[in-house]
Amino acid sequence: MNRSSKTAFPDERLTLFEVREMWDVLSPDEQIEAFELLDRPSAQEFLFTLSRHKRAAFILQASEAERLFWMRQLPPDEAADIIQQSPKKQRSKLLELLDERTRREVQALLTYKADVAGGLMNTRFAQVRPDQTIDEAIHYLRLQAKDYLESIFYVFVLDQGQRLLGVVSFQELFRAPQERKISEIMKTEVVTVPENQNQEIVARLFNRYKFIALPVVDHENKIKGIITADDILGAVQEEATEDMQKVGGMEALDQPYLQIDFWTMLKKRAGWLAALFIGEMLTASAMAHYEEEIARAVVLALFVPLIISSGGNSGSQAATLIIRAMALGEVRLRNWWNIVRREFLTGLGLGCVLATIGLARILLWQLIFHTYGAHYFLVALSVCLSLIGVVVWGTTVGAMLPMLLRRLGCDPASASAPFVATLVDVSGIVIYFTVSAVILHNTLL
Amino acid sequence: MNRSSKTAFPDERLTLFEVREMWDVLSPDEQIEAFELLDRPSAQEFLFTLSRHKRAAFILQASEAERLFWMRQLPPDEAADIIQQSPKKQRSKLLELLDERTRREVQALLTYKADVAGGLMNTRFAQVRPDQTIDEAIHYLRLQAKDYLESIFYVFVLDQGQRLLGVVSFQELFRAPQERKISEIMKTEVVTVPENQNQEIVARLFNRYKFIALPVVDHENKIKGIITADDILGAVQEEATEDMQKVGGMEALDQPYLQIDFWTMLKKRAGWLAALFIGEMLTASAMAHYEEEIARAVVLALFVPLIISSGGNSGSQAATLIIRAMALGEVRLRNWWNIVRREFLTGLGLGCVLATIGLARILLWQLIFHTYGAHYFLVALSVCLSLIGVVVWGTTVGAMLPMLLRRLGCDPASASAPFVATLVDVSGIVIYFTVSAVILHNTLL
Repeated sequence: MNRSSKTAFPDERLTLFEVREMWDVLSPDEQIEAFELLDRPSAQEFLFTLSRHKRAAFILQASEAERLFWMRQLPPDEAADIIQQSPKKQRSKLLELLDERTRREVQALLTYKADVAGGLMNTRFAQVRPDQTIDEAIHYLRLQAKDYLESIFYVFVLDQGQRLLGVVSFQELFRAPQERKISEIMKTEVVTVPENQNQEIVARLFNRYKFIALPVVDHENKIKGIITADDILGAVQEEATEDMQKVGGMEALDQPYLQIDFWTMLKKRAGWLAALFIGEMLTASAMAHYEEEIARAVVLALFVPLIISSGGNSGSQAATLIIRAMALGEVRLRNWWNIVRREFLTGLGLGCVLATIGLARILLWQLIFHTYGAHYFLVALSVCLSLIGVVVWGTTVGAMLPMLLRRLGCDPASASAPFVATLVDVSGIVIYFTVSAVILHNTLL
Repeated sequence: MNRSSKTAFPDERLTLFEVREMWDVLSPDEQIEAFELLDRPSAQEFLFTLSRHKRAAFILQASEAERLFWMRQLPPDEAADIIQQSPKKQRSKLLELLDERTRREVQALLTYKADVAGGLMNTRFAQVRPDQTIDEAIHYLRLQAKDYLESIFYVFVLDQGQRLLGVVSFQELFRAPQERKISEIMKTEVVTVPENQNQEIVARLFNRYKFIALPVVDHENKIKGIITADDILGAVQEEATEDMQKVGGMEALDQPYLQIDFWTMLKKRAGWLAALFIGEMLTASAMAHYEEEIARAVVLALFVPLIISSGGNSGSQAATLIIRAMALGEVRLRNWWNIVRREFLTGLGLGCVLATIGLARILLWQLIFHTYGAHYFLVALSVCLSLIGVVVWGTTVGAMLPMLLRRLGCDPASASAPFVATLVDVSGIVIYFTVSAVILHNTLL
């Protein structure tokens, strides 16, 4: 880039404050130009106040020389992220630039998928040996801190083969008499995470135990890295977003709403919507099946939307509840009978509430407007009994579907509210016209 | 409790392992009994491997002597939680048992609501003075660690009035030459959280900057405590659960699914369901308004569920997307025009997709079964145009409703999928019969 010929910034130098103020409104090219007008210490300070995402974006688009310089400043997990986001052919070149130690760490990190423990962990943690005295251990930690360690959460006690023997908290280390051995004060019961554990399970561990960091180990109990609570926070938000979007009846977008391009979003929403539409076509078939009954008693058609939507709404409640409870680990497959019984009873209760309101409404309208003809009471009865049936069915299906999906190895969150509603709509029509046929036989039908 | 007369455990002593294995299947009384059969060190170790929630539940139900003993072992934020969950008349008694320092900290914490920064923070953090040398600072930190500090994330530099001047990382502290002053190495630009900041905003800060801890300050920039990423993790999960349950069409349960009692759950679900039902009754009125048209052309009634559910489904997608994007701070009110335009266009695209499928379906059925009579093409045209109208309307309403609710100071997540569906159902019927009236005028109608 030839800065003298065409520049957005006529001044020779920019301050940290100026760059920070204007950063978000600059184009990528202007960002690079502005950045280069900072002195090095300011540039470094600025880069590390950017969010991790913006930092990666900037380093990726910087000139080659800049990229190389900044890659070396990053901790291994961030460097691994950036390499993963780079075009394939640039990767080995970027790797070569790192120092020996970091390169080995980055290469190890690159072998993990992004959503498992190994993909979230940091490879730099505080370590001591069991036969060190407290005094030796503290000295050893100071060396690690000077050399490469950014922060200490727990101190991990390892044998010569890097196998995890125990853990010592910061406080225990400073409280113990200086001449005692680490092995005498360490806790040997350590909660660990297998390197390929899914991030959803890791999040549950953090949530249950309120740890600030957890060690990641392989099958031989060798320590590979640590996951800190801040690493898992992003993962938790991401999982919740995916689940919520699926429950809302679409594919997970995987990108912020305003950043995703129009056509990708349309595709992610059209798929499910079309599938639901095709499923919902069965309602037209079901209605066609009862066309004669409708022709004879148009009054029946009036309540179709009311009845089927009640089933859909109650099913949506149940499905959402169970999906979230499963994601949080509050509910497991072995609880299924417990849940079905509970939801069946809830459905019965909810159905009775709605039936009562429905009955009151029909009787009231009849009293005032005489809307529903001579057999209004039988119509009301059909509507109320159908409501109870449809709501019980809706809640039960809504609760069972996520569990069934999990049992089949699919994502429970695919049992979206619209999916359950569609399922229940078709059966709701059948329930309604069957109940009506029995009750209105020889009168309206 | 008289242990000799009636006990579930005939042995005199239980081991840590035995208690841990059986804990979850014991009744509260048996838990207390089992716990008392542990020796004190094992009891302490056991208690602190329980989740925070279970630990609080156990301490609350333990005998008074036990409760008093364990209250003194807890850090101030946990003690405050337990006091908050205790009956009002016990609170001052529990407070009195704490040592002077902890009591002051707990009392300060009790003045905050649970879902703001002050309610999440820990009052014990590492602090140094700006004029200390590195060596003095490290010595001072060791004293704090010995005395009360459990862990160190960052070291905060405070003046005599506890005002925050800067921050030093663990690494910077150990890297710097011992005789330099803290004021020379501290960073003075510190991201802070106001003490009454809502936890949702705090979670966003953590997510954006990947901090492990943030200082909480009052309006005079005096430091009140620190929030660590593990504190915010529970808050993030809680917020996501609440939002998802609201989107599913109910009040937030605020308790794990299997722990909430049946009647409370029924109440939390019946409220919204009944409200939606009453709203949905408008569909019966709308349908009654078109009763004559339906009597003349029963074929029209067949497509009512299909059309209104398509509007509901597309509205549910849009609402869920926008609600989640707002919760994550990806979308703000000032983006409203951008969003409405985008959703309008998306609705148009989605509507065309569904209309095409619908057209194919009607023409195919007509070809094979001759289902839809002589004017099948006009019926198909009515259905397709209505679909486009309803889907555009559904997406636009679904996207705008959460923003409107936020603008009115309500929770956007109340714009649940069923709520949007109900809104769109009624208008969907009106759109459908209006379009049909125009197209089928002088033929079927």
